[in-house]
Amino acid sequence: MSEQKIPYKIYLAEDEMPKTWYNVRADMKVKPAPLVNPGTLQPMTAADLSAVFCDELIAQELDNDTREVPIPDEILGFYKMYRPSPLVRAYCLEEKLQTPAHIYYKFEGNNTSGSHKLNSAIAQAYYAKKQGLKGVTTETGAGQWGTALSMACAYLGLDCKVYMVKVSYEQKPFRREVMRTYGASVTPSPSMETAVGRKILAEHPGTTGSLGCAISEAVEVATSNPGYRYVLGSVLNQVLLHQSVIGLETKTALDKYGVVPDIIIGCAGGGSNLGGLISPFMGEKLRGERDYRIIAVEPASCPSFTRGKFAYDFCDTGMICPLAKMYTLGAGFIPSPNHAGGLRFHGMSPVLSQLYHDGYIEATSVEQTAVFEAAEFFARTEGILPAPESSHAIKVAIDEAKKCKETGEAKNIVFGLTGTGYFDLVAYEQFNNGTMTDHIPTDEELAAGLAALPPQPAL
Amino acid sequence: MSEQKIPYKIYLAEDEMPKTWYNVRADMKVKPAPLVNPGTLQPMTAADLSAVFCDELIAQELDNDTREVPIPDEILGFYKMYRPSPLVRAYCLEEKLQTPAHIYYKFEGNNTSGSHKLNSAIAQAYYAKKQGLKGVTTETGAGQWGTALSMACAYLGLDCKVYMVKVSYEQKPFRREVMRTYGASVTPSPSMETAVGRKILAEHPGTTGSLGCAISEAVEVATSNPGYRYVLGSVLNQVLLHQSVIGLETKTALDKYGVVPDIIIGCAGGGSNLGGLISPFMGEKLRGERDYRIIAVEPASCPSFTRGKFAYDFCDTGMICPLAKMYTLGAGFIPSPNHAGGLRFHGMSPVLSQLYHDGYIEATSVEQTAVFEAAEFFARTEGILPAPESSHAIKVAIDEAKKCKETGEAKNIVFGLTGTGYFDLVAYEQFNNGTMTDHIPTDEELAAGLAALPPQPAL
Repeated sequence: MSEQKIPYKIYLAEDEMPKTWYNVRADMKVKPAPLVNPGTLQPMTAADLSAVFCDELIAQELDNDTREVPIPDEILGFYKMYRPSPLVRAYCLEEKLQTPAHIYYKFEGNNTSGSHKLNSAIAQAYYAKKQGLKGVTTETGAGQWGTALSMACAYLGLDCKVYMVKVSYEQKPFRREVMRTYGASVTPSPSMETAVGRKILAEHPGTTGSLGCAISEAVEVATSNPGYRYVLGSVLNQVLLHQSVIGLETKTALDKYGVVPDIIIGCAGGGSNLGGLISPFMGEKLRGERDYRIIAVEPASCPSFTRGKFAYDFCDTGMICPLAKMYTLGAGFIPSPNHAGGLRFHGMSPVLSQLYHDGYIEATSVEQTAVFEAAEFFARTEGILPAPESSHAIKVAIDEAKKCKETGEAKNIVFGLTGTGYFDLVAYEQFNNGTMTDHIPTDEELAAGLAALPPQPAL
Repeated sequence: MSEQKIPYKIYLAEDEMPKTWYNVRADMKVKPAPLVNPGTLQPMTAADLSAVFCDELIAQELDNDTREVPIPDEILGFYKMYRPSPLVRAYCLEEKLQTPAHIYYKFEGNNTSGSHKLNSAIAQAYYAKKQGLKGVTTETGAGQWGTALSMACAYLGLDCKVYMVKVSYEQKPFRREVMRTYGASVTPSPSMETAVGRKILAEHPGTTGSLGCAISEAVEVATSNPGYRYVLGSVLNQVLLHQSVIGLETKTALDKYGVVPDIIIGCAGGGSNLGGLISPFMGEKLRGERDYRIIAVEPASCPSFTRGKFAYDFCDTGMICPLAKMYTLGAGFIPSPNHAGGLRFHGMSPVLSQLYHDGYIEATSVEQTAVFEAAEFFARTEGILPAPESSHAIKVAIDEAKKCKETGEAKNIVFGLTGTGYFDLVAYEQFNNGTMTDHIPTDEELAAGLAALPPQPAL
C-alpha cells in the first residue's frame, strides 16, 4: 500500500473498535508470580483480597488463563466519550528529523484526565458500581489517576475519595480543582481522618506526605467503611488488562493500512501504559507469530528495570500491601525530588517484569533534561505539549529515528504518547529557565533501597 | 436516516475537509461598515493599513465580494495536526436531561492552545511568513490567542513577540510557560521596551496593565521594527474568514447524516468563534435557501449585543486603532474584575454586528454562576472540562434542550464548544468553594462607557 494513503491521524470507526480486552498472561509460558501475603508468605487468595478490592477485579487479577475478556456494554458506552484515540503518523516530526523512518504515536491525552489512566478508571469504577458499592478510595500523587477516577465516578454516580499527597495538594491546586469539579472529595494526606494519618501526624507534625502514606489512608478508609473498596491505577494485572485497549486499537489501525511496526516504545513507571500498548504485539511475539523490538523507557533517576532487582517486594512505601514479584528498587526508594512528573514508582508491573526477565522486552533509561529537550522539540513540531512521562518515549523514538537516518532504513516506529503536559508547567518553567537538573542515583543509594527487601517466599 | 446510525463523534476524512474558506460578506446584502481612520473619519485604505498588517491579510479584510477563498496548501498541512475537530453527538447529555432534542457540539479544544484560536493564528502567521517577514507581535489577556500564535510561529519558524497583560503574566504563569515552550518571547505589559509602556509606567508606576495598553505596545513594536507586523485574534473580518472552517466542517458532518440544525448557539466575545461556526448556515439564510435560529450568548457582565449601541468605536481601549462600526459598550468599558475567562471585549465583530442589526441573529446574556453550573454539569456528563467562554453556549443549549422536553419537540441543537478549561481552574476553584459571584452592570455604568464614543463618520 502506498505511503500517501496513510492519513495523518487514523481514527477507528465504531464498528472497528475492540469489544474484548486481551489478557497477555494467557500467552505467557512463564506466568507472573502471584501476589503474596507478607505475613504468611503464601499466595493471596480471592478471599484474602476481598476486603480491599472488588470481587470482579480480583477475579481478573488472578486469572492467568482467559485470553479474551468481553468489555461490558456500559464501559463501551463510556469509551465513546473519548475513544477511539487517534493513531497519528508523525509526518511533521519525520520531516524535521529528515529520517526515512515512519513514526506513529498513539495519543491518549485527548480527554480531561489528560492521560490513558481513564481506561482503567472506568473499568474499576464500573465493577465497583456493579457490585452495589457506594464508592471507591484511592491515592494520587501527580493527580492523573485521581482525575481519571473522579471522571469515571461522576459518570456512574459513585462516591470517590481521593487521598492526595499533601505537597501535591498544595503545589498542584489545579489538579485538585479538576477532581472537585467532578465531585470527588480530595483530602491532603496525611490527614486526621484516619488512624494511620493521625499516627503519622503525631510522629512527624510537619510532614508533607508520601505516596505510601496516601495509599495506607485510602486502604484504611476502604476497609473500614461498608460499601467502599480501594482501587489502584497501575502495576496490577487487572490494570494491564484494561489498558490493552490502547494496543488493540493501535494494532487494528496499523493492520488496516498494512503497517507492521519494527520498534514499539513506551514509557514505564508502574507499567500501565507500556503494558497496554504492547499487549497484542507481545501476544504475537509470545506465540511465535511475529517478532517486534519492544523498548521500555524509564527515568535515570528511578531505574527499576535497568538497575533494580527481580524480587518480591511491597508495592507501597508504607509496606501494608501484598508482596509482588517485580523489578524493584526497594519499597523505601524515593526518587530525587528534582524528578518531575510521574514514573516515580519504585517497582514495575509483575507481568512486564516477568516478560523483561524472560527477554521479551528491552529497557533503557534517559535523563530528565534530555527528555525535556525532546518534549520541547516535539511540541514545536507536532503541536502537542506532551506530559513529562510520555516524553521519555518521545526521546527514544527520536533517537531511533536518527539511527534510521544514519543507516537509511525506513523502519516503522510506534510509540505511546500517554498524555498532555498542561499540569506540568512548573517543570517546563524550570526547563525554559535552564534550572532543570539531572540526578542519577549512586550505586550506594540503590544498595540502600535494595537492602530493605522483605523475606522472600519459597515459591 | 435512523438515529442509531449517527456516531457519537463524527470525524471527517481528509478528502471531506474544506479546501476553501467561506466569506459570508459576499452574501450580505448590507455589507459591514468599513474601518475608519479616527483622525480623518475616512475609510481606511490598504495603504493606510500596511504599516500594521500583512498585505494579504489586508486584502482579505477589505474583500467583501469573493465568496470562496482557497486555503493555501501549507495551512491545510498544518490543519492535519489538529483538524478535523470532532462534531460530537451529546448522547450522554441528552440522556441525563431526558430531552427529545438531539444535541451536537463542535469541539475545538483538542489542541495545545486549548481553543479555536489556532485556526486564525496559523493563517495569519502563514501570510506573514509568505510576505518574507521576520516575525509578528500581538497582545494576549487570558492567553489562548498568544498560545495559538506561538504554536503557529514555532511551526513556521517565525519570531513571535507576545505582550501579556501584567496581571495575567503573574497570575497565569502556566499559559506564559506554554508560550515560552513554543519559543515565543512573552513580555509583561506595560514594559520598558516601548515608548508607550515607559510613558504609562512613569504615570502609573504600580499598574498591572490592561489589554488596551498591551495592544498599544504590540502595535508600536510591529510598526517600529522592520520585518514585523501586528496580528489580532478576533473581531476582524479576516479572522471570521479563517474561522469559517469550523462551520464548514460542522455543516459537512451534519449533511453526511442528513441532519439539519434547528438552533445554532455560540458564545460571543469578539465574535471569532460564533462567526466561524455559523458562517455557511448564515450563507444559506442570507441567500434565502434555509432558515436557522442562531443565538449569540454573551456574559451579563459584558453585554455588547444585548445592551450596547451600534456605532463607530475604537477596537482597543488604548484608542490608537481604527474605528469599527459595531455593537459596543464603549472602548473605555471594563467588565467587572470578577468576570472569569474571556468574552471581556467591549465590542463585537462588525460582520456579526451588521447581521444582528439586520435581524439574522438573536442574542442573549447569561450570568456567571449559572454558566459554571452548566459547565460542571457538562463536565460530569460529557467528560470534557469546558472553558468558561464555551460554557456560555452550553448553558443556553441546555436551556433549549429543556424547553424541548416540555414541548416534546426533537429539535436539532448545535453549539460550539470552543475550548477547554485547564487554565481556568482558579475560576473553577471559586465556583467549587461557593465564592463566585455575578455582576450585572447598572444602566449608569453602561451610560458612562457609551458617553465616550468618538465622533461618528458621516458614511
